Amino acid sequence: MEKLEQLYKGKAKKMYATDDPDVLWVEYMNQATAGNGAKKAQIEGKGALNNRITSLVFELLKARGVDSHFIKRLSDTEQLVRKMTMFPLEIIMRNVAAGSFAARYGIKEGTPLANPILEFCLKSDPLNDPFINDDGILALKLADREALDEISRQARAVNDALLDIFAAIDVELVDFKIEEGRTSGGRILLADEITPDTCRLWDKKDHSGTVEHLDKDLFRRDLGSIIPAYEEIHTRLLSLAKHEGLATIE
Amino acid sequence: MEKLEQLYKGKAKKMYATDDPDVLWVEYMNQATAGNGAKKAQIEGKGALNNRITSLVFELLKARGVDSHFIKRLSDTEQLVRKMTMFPLEIIMRNVAAGSFAARYGIKEGTPLANPILEFCLKSDPLNDPFINDDGILALKLADREALDEISRQARAVNDALLDIFAAIDVELVDFKIEEGRTSGGRILLADEITPDTCRLWDKKDHSGTVEHLDKDLFRRDLGSIIPAYEEIHTRLLSLAKHEGLATIE
Repeated sequence: MEKLEQLYKGKAKKMYATDDPDVLWVEYMNQATAGNGAKKAQIEGKGALNNRITSLVFELLKARGVDSHFIKRLSDTEQLVRKMTMFPLEIIMRNVAAGSFAARYGIKEGTPLANPILEFCLKSDPLNDPFINDDGILALKLADREALDEISRQARAVNDALLDIFAAIDVELVDFKIEEGRTSGGRILLADEITPDTCRLWDKKDHSGTVEHLDKDLFRRDLGSIIPAYEEIHTRLLSLAKHEGLATIE
Repeated sequence: MEKLEQLYKGKAKKMYATDDPDVLWVEYMNQATAGNGAKKAQIEGKGALNNRITSLVFELLKARGVDSHFIKRLSDTEQLVRKMTMFPLEIIMRNVAAGSFAARYGIKEGTPLANPILEFCLKSDPLNDPFINDDGILALKLADREALDEISRQARAVNDALLDIFAAIDVELVDFKIEEGRTSGGRILLADEITPDTCRLWDKKDHSGTVEHLDKDLFRRDLGSIIPAYEEIHTRLLSLAKHEGLATIE
C-alpha cells in the first residue's frame, strides 16, 4: 500500500490517498481543539494514543458484530480505513446527561437518562454544528429516509456495543459522537474515530463521589493533563482486547 | 357560565376558572412580546383581533375534521375553551425556511422545504425554549411514546388543514407554533391559539417580489404596525368562514 497525496486536514487527523481508490491512509495528529476550534493546543503523544485507542475500539466493536471503516493500524499514529462519502452529520448518543445536553435543558450533569438519546447535528463549522432533527435532515437532503433509518439503527447498535465494552473496563460511557458514511459500493458504515476526544468516559473505579474524567473534558474544562487519562483508557482497552483474543492487536 | 378566579396570566392571555371544572374563560390581552419577552408593547385592538382570528381558525379547522379545545367566542376579547393539562412543549410546523430555522442552518428565508418539518421545543422561559427531539422528550418524560406519536400526528393534520385554509385566502403558511394538552378524560387535543402571533403568514397577493408579512414579524422586526395586517387576516378568514356557512360565526 502506497501513501499518496494529502486529501484532507481536519482538527485531529490528516487523510491521504493510497494506490487503492477505496482505501485512505489516516494520520492522527497531536492537536487538541475544543469549542469548535476556539481553544487549541499541541499535546505530545495524543495522536498515537487516539490512533491506538480507536483501532482497539473498532476491533472490539467488530467482535460484537458492529462493522466500521477501519482496516488496520499501520504505526503509532497511522491507520488504513475504507474511503467513504460522509454524511454531513455529527451523530451523538447519550446515556447520561452531560455537556451541551445538560446545559440546554437545565439538568444536573450526571443525571441518568430514562432512555438513550440519539441526536444529530449538521456538521458545519461556520454554523457551529447546529442540532437538527429527522424532518430537518430530510428537508435539507442531508440523508434520505432509508439512509437515516440505517444510520439511526447503527448508532444505537454502536451504543449497545460500546456500553458493553466500557462496562467491561469499569468506565461509564456518558455520551459519544460518531460519523457515518457510504462506501463506493453504497454500504452505510461507521467511520471517523471513537476516542476520548469523541466520548465522555467517567471512571467507575473512582469512589470519592466526584467524577474522574477520562476524556477531552479534562482539556475543555482545564481539569488537568489528558495524557494519563488517555493512557489509562488505552491500557484497559488493550487488556480487554487481549482477554478477548483479538488477533490483530499487538 | 360564570367567570371565577384568575388561574394564569401569560404574555398574551389570561385564563379564568368557571363554574364548570372542565371549562376555562380566556381573555386575550393587547400585549405583544417578542424574543422571549425581551421586547414588549401594548397594541390597542390586538387582543380582540387575535380572539376573533383564533376563533375563526378553530371553527375552520373543525370543519376540516381537526378538533381543538375551543368551545365558543363570548365577546370581542373573550372565549371559552376546554381545560387541559398541557404538555410542556412548543410544537412547530414549517413549510418554508424562515426565522430561527433559516438562521440555524444558514438557509435563505423563503426557501421552500422539501417536506414539512415538525420541531419541538421544551417550553421554558429561563432556558429560552430549547429545541428538543423525540428521544429527548421521552428521556425527560415530557410525553410518553404514545402521546408523542399522537401529538405528532395531530400537528401534521393541523398543518394540512391550515395549508388548505390559508391557501383559500391567498396567504402562504410559512410556519406556526401550536400547543397540545390532555382533557380531564385523557383525550389529546390542540389547544392554545392560532393567530398571526403564532404563525408566519405571507401575503400571496403581493407581487412586488418582496414578502408582505401579515404576522408578528412586523413587530419582531420593526417593519410596521401589526393591526392592519391582523385586520386583513381577520377579514379574509371571516369571508371564508361565511362562504363555508359556518353557523357560529357572527
